[in-house]
Amino acid sequence: MTGDWIAVDWGSTNRRALRIDADGTVVEHFRDDRGVLVVAGGDFATEAATIRARLGDLPMLCAGMVGSNRGWVDAGYVPVPAGLEALAAGLCWVEPSRTAIVPGVCRTAGGRADVMRGEEVQLLGAVAAGLVPADALVVQPGTHAKWATLAGGMIADFTTAMVGEVFALLSKGSLLADGLDMPAADGAAFRAGVARGAEGDLLAGLFGARAALVLGKRDRCDQASYVSGLLIGSDTAVRLAGHRGLVHVLAEAGLGGLYAAAIDALGHRAVVVNSADAFVAGISAIWQRRA
Amino acid sequence: MTGDWIAVDWGSTNRRALRIDADGTVVEHFRDDRGVLVVAGGDFATEAATIRARLGDLPMLCAGMVGSNRGWVDAGYVPVPAGLEALAAGLCWVEPSRTAIVPGVCRTAGGRADVMRGEEVQLLGAVAAGLVPADALVVQPGTHAKWATLAGGMIADFTTAMVGEVFALLSKGSLLADGLDMPAADGAAFRAGVARGAEGDLLAGLFGARAALVLGKRDRCDQASYVSGLLIGSDTAVRLAGHRGLVHVLAEAGLGGLYAAAIDALGHRAVVVNSADAFVAGISAIWQRRA
Repeated sequence: MTGDWIAVDWGSTNRRALRIDADGTVVEHFRDDRGVLVVAGGDFATEAATIRARLGDLPMLCAGMVGSNRGWVDAGYVPVPAGLEALAAGLCWVEPSRTAIVPGVCRTAGGRADVMRGEEVQLLGAVAAGLVPADALVVQPGTHAKWATLAGGMIADFTTAMVGEVFALLSKGSLLADGLDMPAADGAAFRAGVARGAEGDLLAGLFGARAALVLGKRDRCDQASYVSGLLIGSDTAVRLAGHRGLVHVLAEAGLGGLYAAAIDALGHRAVVVNSADAFVAGISAIWQRRA
Repeated sequence: MTGDWIAVDWGSTNRRALRIDADGTVVEHFRDDRGVLVVAGGDFATEAATIRARLGDLPMLCAGMVGSNRGWVDAGYVPVPAGLEALAAGLCWVEPSRTAIVPGVCRTAGGRADVMRGEEVQLLGAVAAGLVPADALVVQPGTHAKWATLAGGMIADFTTAMVGEVFALLSKGSLLADGLDMPAADGAAFRAGVARGAEGDLLAGLFGARAALVLGKRDRCDQASYVSGLLIGSDTAVRLAGHRGLVHVLAEAGLGGLYAAAIDALGHRAVVVNSADAFVAGISAIWQRRA
């Protein structure tokens, strides 16, 4: 019990808090919608106290958007190549000896800027737990899909694609909105979208999706699958150009399927890995390395 | 005076009505915001009567979204290759001998669907007026940018890219919205966007635009120009692959500049042509050919 601590995966819209014992076992946890964007007045200290009231008066390590400029404090970024030691060395203690926040990771080489915050814990945790090899290409699907190249167990480089957010924008009031409220699934329409997306002509592909509906060339029920394929295929094809070997899909249960299908459709092999397990392994590994 | 008639360029959000004499000269015109989407209850007959009350009790030829399934009637589509004769033969008379609507143009070859409605009048009018040669590549910038290949004075093929609408979606409440309310202009930021857009990796380019701001690598004042370049460059590079010769930019005064700049940045030459003149020439040529 004395070695117990609290880990918080604190994103923009949700958070998950876990009490972890000295052996790294999750003994209690909960999930709610107290994400960074709804913390009124930015009173994160009160929020942390509420978590402790529920899970115990224990030290706490947070990761995710809680460390952004819209969160508790800006915990900064560690540049690539980034490993567990650098993240642990960069911890930002917001309550001395009590509460720390994991920094994000950035890359700026060649004039191309990119950032991640929260995904780095899953990525390095997946390696630490043996779920992903030390050298791998890993995709984390979502609002902002992350593609990371792992080398020697470090995050060597990465690219973020605005996949889920563009789908959400199109769903709400665009010319393309019709049909996008239906569920997207793997199948002929999804794979036709992946193939069109892989042509690298997304803006024309999007209008063409609408035109196919207008001309009666596609069933409205297939539109969400097609457009989902178009966006995921557009992202995936660029990232897989020149890649050989497996691609690891690090996702919550059920969310990795469409990316795995797109990777398969483009002639590569995908392995789906549970991101919740990877988070626990990653945040525990950083906790063990804290100063 | 007996040969006078009324032409209406009737789009989704605006319309322009012109009284044209037998010599093809515009003798009176007005523009307002009574676009198709605001005509309450779809009472287009009353709207047409209002136009006649202002410009004269004359025959009327309409083009644009007024001929869509959200307009007066669905005036259908003429397939490519489409010329003035086919459009004139396909006129949809909504008020016998009084009021007609020009059909749109569609293409469906090779499983790629696309439609236009209104742009066909400008395209064929530009050729009829000698503003664009009979064989040409023409771009019409806008919410949905059209790229048409003209051959022998006909619309041989075309592609629509959702450029302006995606910019508008990003401006309203996306992660990228910060700075997009400022004006976009040609310059170093715009051309950096064009170069990144030409790489065919739009979804990553969009997130990277945000990351550059977060990391202090780009001034917020340059963001709209950069993102505009990213979208226009993404569209333009695909369309110019393998193209030789001039590109004609058919646009309202002032709106063709960014496309012309992107075409220049990608190593091609652009000529800007006034789309209002092209519309008058096109609708007049169709009117002369009516049955």
